[in-house]
Amino acid sequence: MQIKAHIITIGDEILYGQILDTNAQWMSQQLDAIGIKVTQRITIGDVKSEILETLEYSEKRADIVLITGGLGPTEDDLTKPCLAEYFKVGMEINEQALGEITEMFRRFKKELTPLNRLQANLPSNCTMISNSLGTAPGMWFYENQTVFVSMPGVPFEMKEMVSTYILPKLQEQFELPRVYHKIVKTIGIGESWLADKIKPWADELPKDIGLAYLPSLGEVKLRLTVSGKSNNLETRVAEEIEKLKVYAGKYIYGYDSDTIESVVGKILLERNETIATAESCTGGYLAHMITSVPGSSAYFLGSVIAYSNDIKMSQLGVQKATLDAYGAVSEQTVIEMSEGIRRKYGTTYGMATSGIAGPDGGTPEKPVGTVWIAFSGPEGTRTRLLSLAKDRLLNIQASAKATLALAWQTFSQNS
Amino acid sequence: MQIKAHIITIGDEILYGQILDTNAQWMSQQLDAIGIKVTQRITIGDVKSEILETLEYSEKRADIVLITGGLGPTEDDLTKPCLAEYFKVGMEINEQALGEITEMFRRFKKELTPLNRLQANLPSNCTMISNSLGTAPGMWFYENQTVFVSMPGVPFEMKEMVSTYILPKLQEQFELPRVYHKIVKTIGIGESWLADKIKPWADELPKDIGLAYLPSLGEVKLRLTVSGKSNNLETRVAEEIEKLKVYAGKYIYGYDSDTIESVVGKILLERNETIATAESCTGGYLAHMITSVPGSSAYFLGSVIAYSNDIKMSQLGVQKATLDAYGAVSEQTVIEMSEGIRRKYGTTYGMATSGIAGPDGGTPEKPVGTVWIAFSGPEGTRTRLLSLAKDRLLNIQASAKATLALAWQTFSQNS
Repeated sequence: MQIKAHIITIGDEILYGQILDTNAQWMSQQLDAIGIKVTQRITIGDVKSEILETLEYSEKRADIVLITGGLGPTEDDLTKPCLAEYFKVGMEINEQALGEITEMFRRFKKELTPLNRLQANLPSNCTMISNSLGTAPGMWFYENQTVFVSMPGVPFEMKEMVSTYILPKLQEQFELPRVYHKIVKTIGIGESWLADKIKPWADELPKDIGLAYLPSLGEVKLRLTVSGKSNNLETRVAEEIEKLKVYAGKYIYGYDSDTIESVVGKILLERNETIATAESCTGGYLAHMITSVPGSSAYFLGSVIAYSNDIKMSQLGVQKATLDAYGAVSEQTVIEMSEGIRRKYGTTYGMATSGIAGPDGGTPEKPVGTVWIAFSGPEGTRTRLLSLAKDRLLNIQASAKATLALAWQTFSQNS
Repeated sequence: MQIKAHIITIGDEILYGQILDTNAQWMSQQLDAIGIKVTQRITIGDVKSEILETLEYSEKRADIVLITGGLGPTEDDLTKPCLAEYFKVGMEINEQALGEITEMFRRFKKELTPLNRLQANLPSNCTMISNSLGTAPGMWFYENQTVFVSMPGVPFEMKEMVSTYILPKLQEQFELPRVYHKIVKTIGIGESWLADKIKPWADELPKDIGLAYLPSLGEVKLRLTVSGKSNNLETRVAEEIEKLKVYAGKYIYGYDSDTIESVVGKILLERNETIATAESCTGGYLAHMITSVPGSSAYFLGSVIAYSNDIKMSQLGVQKATLDAYGAVSEQTVIEMSEGIRRKYGTTYGMATSGIAGPDGGTPEKPVGTVWIAFSGPEGTRTRLLSLAKDRLLNIQASAKATLALAWQTFSQNS
């Protein structure tokens, strides 16, 4: 039987968008990894009636209800009294909790205020969960066949409780299946074209292996999910990926945490080759993507960002005649830029970008979003024309990613 | 009467924790800014029964229900058929939507597949919302006194729809209180130090003006919020900001949508001066920040990214003796880099960075997170030593921001 969990986040600051709810994502990952299915996440404000209603709602639908937030010492924190009311029990000072809070204040040489003493006041039906990093204890309840866990919202306090106490106790209490996810990363093809291409494979996929499309800027990820008790989940998924390669192999650049910049970097490292960039419209973002990979200094030597035509000429050797005849945003210019940087920095490969990132600067022939990219190496120079949209930042990011994709495509065709 | 909204996010990839739900936070901020109270956020999976149940749940509790996700062309996207079933209507091809999708494919010179054509198939009771950045249209419903809006989950597509169509239409449809937010942006001081400095001012702030601290990487924003029917909200807040300047004026670099890169750019533009960067550890990110500002080509000429010492010497004129004596991560090296790029590109100012971004490469004397930055101009060169943390990406971003802050501080002290 699939064990279901709800995650309830309590806090006005999340509802108003003042902070990002990273806790819920982290808890989802932890539960998923031990085979518990999160079926719903709910965020509510510091309002008693909403907390009570949501507890009842979740109890009806889930085996496990994880609650964060609303446990601080100040007046707007309501979770504990709500839990006591919900379970129809009183509050009492938990001696173990009081001992731990007292000890923490002693250690930090601070005075224990009456407000802090109240943090040891807990609903009488709970099992106290130690908080080794803060003063608000967690609470474990088991009522009406449902586990309720209440934790502080401070991320590192919550994470410590989940890792050391809550996950092991859930694994003890429930019989859980194994769940295995594999992410296949593709580039150079849109979601619907990819779906068309791999339809014969997707139609034949065993029913218990789930498939999801996760598109993001310039790439599409495929997620394969399978769960069960057997030990061969990895093998079964690996076999399906081999079959998938027949239809879409040439678009698959990596798996799981791979990125196009890390994959290109790995190829360069293995080949003991180097790269440099010559950037106009990407303005350094391409170099930033490459250097965001730890250890990139082994293959990335540097860049020339040439926003002005003077610098394109003086630093990259672009010919004045080329700029006059074709303009800065042209195939001829990116070819000269990519070959120029390769020569100047003495690298195996050179990459170049030149385009109109926007929002202004377009013309009827070259509207905003027109970008030329080039990749130059010992075997010649390849170029590509991109027709992007109106958003400056997205155009910059998409152009840089497309240039890395062009490098990867060149490598994989030649290998 | 307070208008209430629910935000529903549909997608297994969020429930499993594979992606962070930044959409919900952004929508919360937008609704809050126009006086709509978000009372609940709910995340559910791609499961028909859950979608139907949640629609009913939210309809009972909210005036506005914003839904994202589940609108792609592939089979795992369920939102549209669920909406049609929920409203007991059929699906039909929306001619305007089909026209826009066809036009988008024509513009990108791609073939319209049957799967893409289906994206124009919408529940018959909806008003179509154009998607200028993608192929899945949005949908606006008004049923049983409740507004339902369904949008794609792709962040930039959703944001464009919300900004250009949904917020204006909500303001038209509901009588909303006037809410006025003013964001004051500070740089160069941490949250608790700032709070100490401005305490006398904060203690005297009128009770109906809310104050929130919004810390982010390398800066702290203060948000002042006031709501009401009167027309003098702006004036009252402006008066308080004048008083705030007595305590914290030298840290305030801008307001609302200002960024440190846009403020530095504006100063350069007004002075008709130019800048270039010489980057080691920031690897192009500093140039990227500068060039993310539209129109930056008026003052930004270009950069040399010098990851290798050879390029620091050959392209920026850093002395071999300097590198031998002090190392690449040193005050002397960033001084020579910033002065070198200024000379080479003939700009008014030069900026430079050199440091150990991590995760590896630290030594006991120069641990990971050690970064030197420099800002050079006609009146000399200023430097700063940063001691950052272990995270590579955060170190890169914080170093670039600190370099822009150093430029801004120099400008504001000399003006």
